[in-house]
Amino acid sequence: MKEFFKVKPPREVLGLYAGFHPVAAEDVPLAASLGRVLAADVAAQADLPPFDRSTMDGYAVQAADTFGASESVPALLSVAGEVRMGEEARLALQPGQAVGIATGGMLPAGADAVVMVEYTQEAGPGQIEVTRAVAPWQHVVRRGEDVPAGRVLLRRGQRVRPQEVGLLAALGRIALSVYARPRVAIISTGDEIVPVEEEPPAGKLRDVNSYSLAAMAEQEGAVALRLGIVADSFEALLARCRQGLEAADMVIISGGSSVGARDFTLAVIRSFEGAKLLVQGVALSPGKPTILADVNGKPLWGLPGHVASAMLVFRTLVAPLVRQLAGRSPEMERSAPLLARLSRNVASALGREDWVRVRLVEEDGGLKAVPVLGKSGLISTLVAADGLIRIDLNSEGLDAGSLVEVFPF
Amino acid sequence: MKEFFKVKPPREVLGLYAGFHPVAAEDVPLAASLGRVLAADVAAQADLPPFDRSTMDGYAVQAADTFGASESVPALLSVAGEVRMGEEARLALQPGQAVGIATGGMLPAGADAVVMVEYTQEAGPGQIEVTRAVAPWQHVVRRGEDVPAGRVLLRRGQRVRPQEVGLLAALGRIALSVYARPRVAIISTGDEIVPVEEEPPAGKLRDVNSYSLAAMAEQEGAVALRLGIVADSFEALLARCRQGLEAADMVIISGGSSVGARDFTLAVIRSFEGAKLLVQGVALSPGKPTILADVNGKPLWGLPGHVASAMLVFRTLVAPLVRQLAGRSPEMERSAPLLARLSRNVASALGREDWVRVRLVEEDGGLKAVPVLGKSGLISTLVAADGLIRIDLNSEGLDAGSLVEVFPF
Repeated sequence: MKEFFKVKPPREVLGLYAGFHPVAAEDVPLAASLGRVLAADVAAQADLPPFDRSTMDGYAVQAADTFGASESVPALLSVAGEVRMGEEARLALQPGQAVGIATGGMLPAGADAVVMVEYTQEAGPGQIEVTRAVAPWQHVVRRGEDVPAGRVLLRRGQRVRPQEVGLLAALGRIALSVYARPRVAIISTGDEIVPVEEEPPAGKLRDVNSYSLAAMAEQEGAVALRLGIVADSFEALLARCRQGLEAADMVIISGGSSVGARDFTLAVIRSFEGAKLLVQGVALSPGKPTILADVNGKPLWGLPGHVASAMLVFRTLVAPLVRQLAGRSPEMERSAPLLARLSRNVASALGREDWVRVRLVEEDGGLKAVPVLGKSGLISTLVAADGLIRIDLNSEGLDAGSLVEVFPF
Repeated sequence: MKEFFKVKPPREVLGLYAGFHPVAAEDVPLAASLGRVLAADVAAQADLPPFDRSTMDGYAVQAADTFGASESVPALLSVAGEVRMGEEARLALQPGQAVGIATGGMLPAGADAVVMVEYTQEAGPGQIEVTRAVAPWQHVVRRGEDVPAGRVLLRRGQRVRPQEVGLLAALGRIALSVYARPRVAIISTGDEIVPVEEEPPAGKLRDVNSYSLAAMAEQEGAVALRLGIVADSFEALLARCRQGLEAADMVIISGGSSVGARDFTLAVIRSFEGAKLLVQGVALSPGKPTILADVNGKPLWGLPGHVASAMLVFRTLVAPLVRQLAGRSPEMERSAPLLARLSRNVASALGREDWVRVRLVEEDGGLKAVPVLGKSGLISTLVAADGLIRIDLNSEGLDAGSLVEVFPF
């Protein structure tokens, strides 16, 4: 057992994902696109706005007609009509003319600016005085100024937020090509595990990982398939893995912590033709006994059975691969590191990356990261945590007051 | 029109929500609980773990039997048996005895510690030598140490994360009482608006707000009901509002920017018996012409028609009320302010709260907030933004280098 794990640093593990590819694309209606990942670039097929629009209530004019205008020397213009909201501006504005227009209205041909109604006054029938000059294109959003036709606006790999939904609505994109949600199959193993709906007899525990890992997969935009509990047996595990590989894009075996369970996982992997064992053991705490294989393009994970280890390995190693299968491109993630000051010294062993649970507390306009006390295996410590901090494998620990990046958890 | 708005500061508006109550509770299965809001406190109905568990592979012992043990003077213990994983520990350990145990195994009665297998060696048939002393309860998670029976673990108003799902699974809570998702009805008004699937004729635009506001509502955990476009007419708007108030817990009218549209909204509100007009005008930029009424306990909003204004008002004023209807308690929100340095001076008018779109850029281990340039009404500026910063209504602006809180957007 001591020789068993050829542990790899976590960063090296993250570098082994190149052989896994995003799942297929599918079309979704715009109204169902929030949070989905674009499978193709989106270019504007038309100018936005599609016409010159007024941004004020007032009069469309030729700016040159207002040059030099002031309270004492107003410019006199004749009112040639009005553009009604939502209607095409049919008349063409001539020099010396003004046309009434509301915010959002279409600028008539010949006009190149809008005078705010506040700087005009009636000056007899069909005439107005303008008391302030406007510059060309003042108070106008020009055709295509928001988005010119042909511009690539959104990129493959980008997640759709509400403002992207709005933009796509403005462009009339009623359906979108997005990556399908990757399906993640989760198998719990261990003779000591009973389904959650059962009262565990003495010595046994309920199946936590099927639920917590499924929730983490869903949080990353995947569809979780809970394939239940498998006894510690090679044949049973093999059959359930086959089922998972057929139904899903990724399979996770949440293993018992026994050597036997790990051996079964390795044996199952070896029994798949063409399977490549990529990882057996990671220099990560918690989470060392982690296994990853490539089974004909589909990742198969063996995670530690312990709930805290399993969740931390998911957060640090599995989630990035789920996002890759989901088509999310790391460059497009708008990542904003959350920085906090560590509240006290935290020791760490050289040669392994430590992930420490922290609570966040506001203090002096900044954030303080307070390590969560208690044995690392307790679920209650996960519930008490707001985030995680990483201690590099070349570090022996961090001092109180250090600036640390907090990864929400 | 200039007199129309009795503008209120945004903070005052947020203080007017007390009359609105969370929606009803419903039961959901544990597997569908991620992200939902608990409608009742959750207490542990049993100890977790339900028995004393070993955290190491080794031998269960009485700690006192190991006191003083070392490499040179090992303690000699007789092996009384083995606890198999997942089985009840039936034998009772006597002084001088050791019982083989694996990580996660149930401690037998009489044992109060576990010696790691690394610090033992066989010493003839049925005997081991222990070469290191253990303290009482070392390498043991005691019954109830994670969660003692009766402890209130999760509180009403709390959102369920994956670790809460795990905890609830461990406790066998297969169904949960959560608040229903609030239903938010969205009505677009304006003669100039056409459905997104239509090619707008000259002077008209597609209905952006039905989609962007629906997406924002969904992002807050609500169910959005898009009720389509209503022409600028009192009767049509009244009928559609009635429909919305019957079907939903909140109604949003995304109004045309014309005075007429606002007048219709106010007239519709007045026509509902018992309706109270709470807000007409907010000292907010963008977003001044915002209306809020209490129609027999249901909020009815009149939002500016402009997409950028509508989205910013939603983010700053509507979303907090959606969360309140969803039962989320503000004290339970694990909020972590995102702090950044402003990249350049930003001016603001006294007497109104300004919300400025920013991009976030990593710099020197911190974050820089770069204001997004371009006219404030352009959708493309919303798409370019990662977040918003707030400039207080008593401030004339912020200097480059100021530390600002960034609200994700």
